[in-house]
Amino acid sequence: MQLATEDDLSGYLIAPDPTAARLTRAVTGVDHDGQQTEISVVEERPLTIFLNGQEIVTAMTIGDYPEYLALGFLRNQGMLRDGETVTGVDYDEDLETVVVRTDGQTTYEEKLKKKTRTSGCAVGTVFGDMMEGLEEVHLPQVQVKTSDLYALASRINRTPSLYLEAGAIHGTVLCQGAQPLVYMEDVGRHNAVDKIAGWMLSEKVSAADKTLYTTGRLTSEMVIKTALMGIPVLASRSGFTAWGVEIAREVGLTLIGRMRGRRFVCLSGEERLLRDADPGAVPEEDRKHRRKGGAA
Amino acid sequence: MQLATEDDLSGYLIAPDPTAARLTRAVTGVDHDGQQTEISVVEERPLTIFLNGQEIVTAMTIGDYPEYLALGFLRNQGMLRDGETVTGVDYDEDLETVVVRTDGQTTYEEKLKKKTRTSGCAVGTVFGDMMEGLEEVHLPQVQVKTSDLYALASRINRTPSLYLEAGAIHGTVLCQGAQPLVYMEDVGRHNAVDKIAGWMLSEKVSAADKTLYTTGRLTSEMVIKTALMGIPVLASRSGFTAWGVEIAREVGLTLIGRMRGRRFVCLSGEERLLRDADPGAVPEEDRKHRRKGGAA
Repeated sequence: MQLATEDDLSGYLIAPDPTAARLTRAVTGVDHDGQQTEISVVEERPLTIFLNGQEIVTAMTIGDYPEYLALGFLRNQGMLRDGETVTGVDYDEDLETVVVRTDGQTTYEEKLKKKTRTSGCAVGTVFGDMMEGLEEVHLPQVQVKTSDLYALASRINRTPSLYLEAGAIHGTVLCQGAQPLVYMEDVGRHNAVDKIAGWMLSEKVSAADKTLYTTGRLTSEMVIKTALMGIPVLASRSGFTAWGVEIAREVGLTLIGRMRGRRFVCLSGEERLLRDADPGAVPEEDRKHRRKGGAA
Repeated sequence: MQLATEDDLSGYLIAPDPTAARLTRAVTGVDHDGQQTEISVVEERPLTIFLNGQEIVTAMTIGDYPEYLALGFLRNQGMLRDGETVTGVDYDEDLETVVVRTDGQTTYEEKLKKKTRTSGCAVGTVFGDMMEGLEEVHLPQVQVKTSDLYALASRINRTPSLYLEAGAIHGTVLCQGAQPLVYMEDVGRHNAVDKIAGWMLSEKVSAADKTLYTTGRLTSEMVIKTALMGIPVLASRSGFTAWGVEIAREVGLTLIGRMRGRRFVCLSGEERLLRDADPGAVPEEDRKHRRKGGAA
């Protein structure tokens, strides 16, 4: 694992904490040569999210930032609307519950009627119409420098993380220009995105000038969440699905996939890209930091 | 992509069909050099599953074997019990629905009350208590040759698949000895496992002498599904979570992770392994077939 240096974490508001005791556990196994081996493995815990009096869902999560996860999940499900005031977020570690309290009426009753199981790593329970609210989305026509995208990918790959420590986990990073701001990890990448949404909601952070970077696939749910959060650019080192690309084009999101070393492919919103970097001058990923697909 | 040869597909009962028109789509993007590029991308479609008169869930799926997916999903959720007779499975491509009909009473009302969102790629909606039924699981003490495990990993890696064609997809393979039998792929690996469970249910295939191989992570849901299906061995080229390992040990499942080339680590059920292969004689994965984590 890469050790932290001042430079690695400069400018981060939230960075991964691979040393946090509660997030990993040493597990003993026997390797191919019959040798005992001790491996640092990520935790996976249930967290039951309540909205006022109503139990909404139990998420399997690594367990950090439960308040942000609950807020972001409810927000991304459309159960927390603009203008609704959150009067409290209470996490109980022993009960493994988070209760989000609001002053207004909530829409969960109708939402709970319809459940959608989404794709791949992006999977999660989606209540109500997955596409709901997308028609009102207007993403700003910001300019995105390819030099910033390359800088972000390289920075994020070199940032000490649970992925580099233990693998089998996804990372999602809220970025501004060439600066990664909030780097969340979770066993489910939908949780990592929800934690970022919860942080943005709590901190009242604007989305218009942000870029979202994820290690995972660009499925329909990832594209929809990013658009509903108001973030105009979504980049990933992984692949994408046809429907994910289709939705990105419908809502005018800039979608960049398979971003590794100097390579990337822009599937949607090409007009936002300012190609100010010479790909030939971008180094290939060094083997040590090349993602090993451990979170497949 | 590797072209099919007689040898690649010999012995398969169901193998991937990377050429099937409905499963992939050509998507045009612009690459890092500003060149237009056409990429074969996997589809992602909604499929709404009904049990008798009741809508249960909408799954996002690549769209093949909808009947097996519906049967396996309901079975793995405990909504179809032993002895319950399935009187019909009706798929409507236009409506994107599958209706499973049974002669008996079903337990979905109580199940629908509780929803759990599970981890990472294994994610899906789980109704009722995730652990329900695990205490009755008794997995047979079969012997597993490491030579068979190595042969399976190599065979599966060389089998033409949507993964090799388009990436961003998961594979799960039901195997017997050194023979892969049924190789299912899907955008969500929970779907791939459910399709295998549905096939086993339809074909009344015994689980006791089988091994399940997956490209994805060994999370709690994958381990629980495998155990409930009665399959004593679960192997993956990816990593694992602490809870996944814990459950495998509780139910006595042989769990093998990080299986790449000659390497693997056995986390549980080591006593089933017959170490008849010399790891030193096992070739490393050839770069062409090394999984690129595209389905992360």
